[in-house]
Amino acid sequence: MPGSKRQLSYWKFKLHEIIYEADTPAGKTFDIILFFVIIFSVILVMLESITSFDAKYHDYLFAAEWFVTILFTLEYIARIISIKNPSKYIFSFYGIIDLLATIPLYLSYFFAGTQVFLAIRALRLLRVFRILKLMRYLGEASQLGRALQASKVKIAVFIYTVLILSVILGTLMYLIEGADAGFTSIPKSIYWTIVTLTTVGYGDIAPQSDLGQVIAAVIMILGYGIIAVPTGIVTSEFTRQASLDKKVHSNTQVCPHCLEENHLEHSHFCHKCGSLLNE
Amino acid sequence: MPGSKRQLSYWKFKLHEIIYEADTPAGKTFDIILFFVIIFSVILVMLESITSFDAKYHDYLFAAEWFVTILFTLEYIARIISIKNPSKYIFSFYGIIDLLATIPLYLSYFFAGTQVFLAIRALRLLRVFRILKLMRYLGEASQLGRALQASKVKIAVFIYTVLILSVILGTLMYLIEGADAGFTSIPKSIYWTIVTLTTVGYGDIAPQSDLGQVIAAVIMILGYGIIAVPTGIVTSEFTRQASLDKKVHSNTQVCPHCLEENHLEHSHFCHKCGSLLNE
Amino acid sequence: MPGSKRQLSYWKFKLHEIIYEADTPAGKTFDIILFFVIIFSVILVMLESITSFDAKYHDYLFAAEWFVTILFTLEYIARIISIKNPSKYIFSFYGIIDLLATIPLYLSYFFAGTQVFLAIRALRLLRVFRILKLMRYLGEASQLGRALQASKVKIAVFIYTVLILSVILGTLMYLIEGADAGFTSIPKSIYWTIVTLTTVGYGDIAPQSDLGQVIAAVIMILGYGIIAVPTGIVTSEFTRQASLDKKVHSNTQVCPHCLEENHLEHSHFCHKCGSLLNE
Amino acid sequence: MPGSKRQLSYWKFKLHEIIYEADTPAGKTFDIILFFVIIFSVILVMLESITSFDAKYHDYLFAAEWFVTILFTLEYIARIISIKNPSKYIFSFYGIIDLLATIPLYLSYFFAGTQVFLAIRALRLLRVFRILKLMRYLGEASQLGRALQASKVKIAVFIYTVLILSVILGTLMYLIEGADAGFTSIPKSIYWTIVTLTTVGYGDIAPQSDLGQVIAAVIMILGYGIIAVPTGIVTSEFTRQASLDKKVHSNTQVCPHCLEENHLEHSHFCHKCGSLLNE
Repeated sequence: MPGSKRQLSYWKFKLHEIIYEADTPAGKTFDIILFFVIIFSVILVMLESITSFDAKYHDYLFAAEWFVTILFTLEYIARIISIKNPSKYIFSFYGIIDLLATIPLYLSYFFAGTQVFLAIRALRLLRVFRILKLMRYLGEASQLGRALQASKVKIAVFIYTVLILSVILGTLMYLIEGADAGFTSIPKSIYWTIVTLTTVGYGDIAPQSDLGQVIAAVIMILGYGIIAVPTGIVTSEFTRQASLDKKVHSNTQVCPHCLEENHLEHSHFCHKCGSLLNE
Repeated sequence: MPGSKRQLSYWKFKLHEIIYEADTPAGKTFDIILFFVIIFSVILVMLESITSFDAKYHDYLFAAEWFVTILFTLEYIARIISIKNPSKYIFSFYGIIDLLATIPLYLSYFFAGTQVFLAIRALRLLRVFRILKLMRYLGEASQLGRALQASKVKIAVFIYTVLILSVILGTLMYLIEGADAGFTSIPKSIYWTIVTLTTVGYGDIAPQSDLGQVIAAVIMILGYGIIAVPTGIVTSEFTRQASLDKKVHSNTQVCPHCLEENHLEHSHFCHKCGSLLNE
Repeated sequence: MPGSKRQLSYWKFKLHEIIYEADTPAGKTFDIILFFVIIFSVILVMLESITSFDAKYHDYLFAAEWFVTILFTLEYIARIISIKNPSKYIFSFYGIIDLLATIPLYLSYFFAGTQVFLAIRALRLLRVFRILKLMRYLGEASQLGRALQASKVKIAVFIYTVLILSVILGTLMYLIEGADAGFTSIPKSIYWTIVTLTTVGYGDIAPQSDLGQVIAAVIMILGYGIIAVPTGIVTSEFTRQASLDKKVHSNTQVCPHCLEENHLEHSHFCHKCGSLLNE
Repeated sequence: MPGSKRQLSYWKFKLHEIIYEADTPAGKTFDIILFFVIIFSVILVMLESITSFDAKYHDYLFAAEWFVTILFTLEYIARIISIKNPSKYIFSFYGIIDLLATIPLYLSYFFAGTQVFLAIRALRLLRVFRILKLMRYLGEASQLGRALQASKVKIAVFIYTVLILSVILGTLMYLIEGADAGFTSIPKSIYWTIVTLTTVGYGDIAPQSDLGQVIAAVIMILGYGIIAVPTGIVTSEFTRQASLDKKVHSNTQVCPHCLEENHLEHSHFCHKCGSLLNE
């Protein structure tokens, strides 16, 4: 029955359009519904974790959990059958997240402690960027991403330096303060150093001795100062990206005579050979 | 009586000048008095909230509250009668704030718990920008506002990313630490994650397990690092705004021949058509 | 005796050179000794404040206090007699600080609680900038000062906005949390809001209710974000100052024909009249 | 036996190549092994500091400690004998660290409390930059270092200002709050001020009085604001360094006539002598 086959492939095509694209009204509606189901599923996970709430409304939460799981399962199947090359989706970043967000309830019948996967549902929130058709937004974000990408090495060097600093200063504080002040081991001391260096400062562990407080003060001022470094890196990179974007804009004229390319936006004559430029 | 009518409209005009404008001595005096009454009303609300103070001086505070309320009422009525189109003022941002700042005491005779509106009085402090005739200041602030406006999308993407990060890391910490360490539910865990990520660090909840402290350290370094992102966004935008403003300054000459506008500050000849520029 | 008078004025001149200038070896030695006496006096004040230390070595500290006071007194007198116009020094910033740093011990015989003035000794540490002959350093610092000066208005608007925000959010938290969670009055609530907004986060007061924690999270993210504003202001101003300094450097060529000054560094022809430029 | 001597010097040369260079496969392998031994030694120090862990596995840790010490000793000897001028290595930064990282176990037989040196092992982690052949990375880091170097004076002025501020405000808080609120001495008060100014905020000491909380709020806003200064310094320096680097990139043409080097990227004629430039 080639007709029904063609009809099937028509339905696949239709399904693909709805699920993977967001330009048609149907696709848009699907994406918005999906977005709210994801939000709902994340809130559900949160509510389940509140003991008093779970005790009271356990049956409702359990039903809602099944509801979400079934919706996610149907969506996952639809995504697989509507795409030409299913393995491409299955092993993609979103494919793996979608699977892991779907299976916790199923797995809970076989294993204990599969709630860990529930946390993954939050990752599905990343879909919002696509759902809201944030082409423009993604453009902005990608400038952000590009800036971070370009300063990757500098950031790595920075983090490595911070870690070495934490190990050295943490060990020092362990030797000075000792177990009485809460610095019970070097790892705990390093933890404290990071808490202080990043200016978080819980106060669950705090130096008691005079020398310890002096070194703590040094660590704080250090931390207060070196926050300037990542900021400086990212800002300078941002500024560079912005000026690059601007350069590309002005770079539209080419001298017909000497082929010089880098003209100011309003130039009429080539700054290199003096020939008249075409608009 | 057309004369008394004209006199009335003259008074309206006079009142309008005093209340809405700040160029005349009378208008200036009105604005300064208003400013101090607003400050006084805000301090009053604060003092009422201090139980020991309120117990001692309740009658004085109550009288002062009536004094402020009557002044505000008179001002509100004056604002309405002196403007040509009252509804324009009533439904404006300041109009609504002025109303809400005036009515709490009246409402307290009908309903309980209307003190909430008292907090709105603080919003009246925004008037100070106008009162102090901060045209120049507003110019500066508007550059600030323009910079924030221009980087709105980037900031939204940033906040959204921080929120998703908080949900994921908060859930993770809930699974690792559990209720014993104060991570009693996922929402509370997310609250803790935000406290840590923003380097606030109250310390009312703090990780106890080794793994929890390792992840906490990662969150801290993350938070310490990603503060660079909004800073980079705003700074790069500020720098761009500043250079735009500079460009606008130089933009005073227009070529009399080709109407080209964007000349360098010292140009004497149009870079577009070679015509002599007027100074 | 005109000779002795001339000799006296010679000594005054010599004294002035030693005390007020730092170019001669004697002046340098004086400044360095003064610097260490100031440091010593500040450490003295600190040691006196440690009860256990003061109980043990009270007599020594008291003697040292007299020693410092006498040195400061002699210096103050020398400064007055060696200057032509004493009142100019006496009412200058440093003159007032020097006096207030000298008198606490004398005053303690007449009044109680004059230790407050001892804190002013720390202000004398500002002399170090002059003492170390930090002309160059002051140049750098003045660039810093100029940047802050230029962005004064923007910073004032920023601080005013932060304060209004603190008043509004503090009042809100007072209404939500109430006295049980430590939010005993609106001023205390505002204090807590500032603690949170600036990401200090002591944790002595912390929200207990769910809604309170949600708003606290919003305040934190707000504070985490708006730290970008002063940074952006100062950085953009710094960059501008740096480019201004650079502009001045390139500004060495003057057109011999039209006297135009603002040429690019490598220009050979005047952009204004086309004349050949001299190097 | 000149042959064996030559053979010896060949072995020395070979050893030098393996230890000091990282281009040959043998050198690379050596560096990677060394890196993991260093990491292992640092983890060892951490584990020893955890009392419960040390009690259980003391013998294993002690054996591993000897293992690491022997490896480090052999490496240290190899480094000395394979270099032409041993004293150059011995008194270099890494030479001293390597020695101090090797000897704690030996010293522990003579003195108590030599664990202090164990902390120095962490410093050996700095070798990773060389080990991973981070020429490129070091280039980036050196840009970072250059930026910090260039703004050294500004940063020193900034830190000095922060310290004076802390001394003054700390003394003030001591006078206001007194011993009851934990401000037991001026040094402790200064410690608290630094904790607050850097937005760390442990909360082990917190102001109790109304005036104290007002001043604390001022300190917080101050600290929140002046963090903009180091950030501004470093960022503006970064931007300058980046633009300098860009300038250097364009610096590929040299005038064949006057040897002038600093040409703009598109220049065809020397801006200094007018000679034609080679491409």
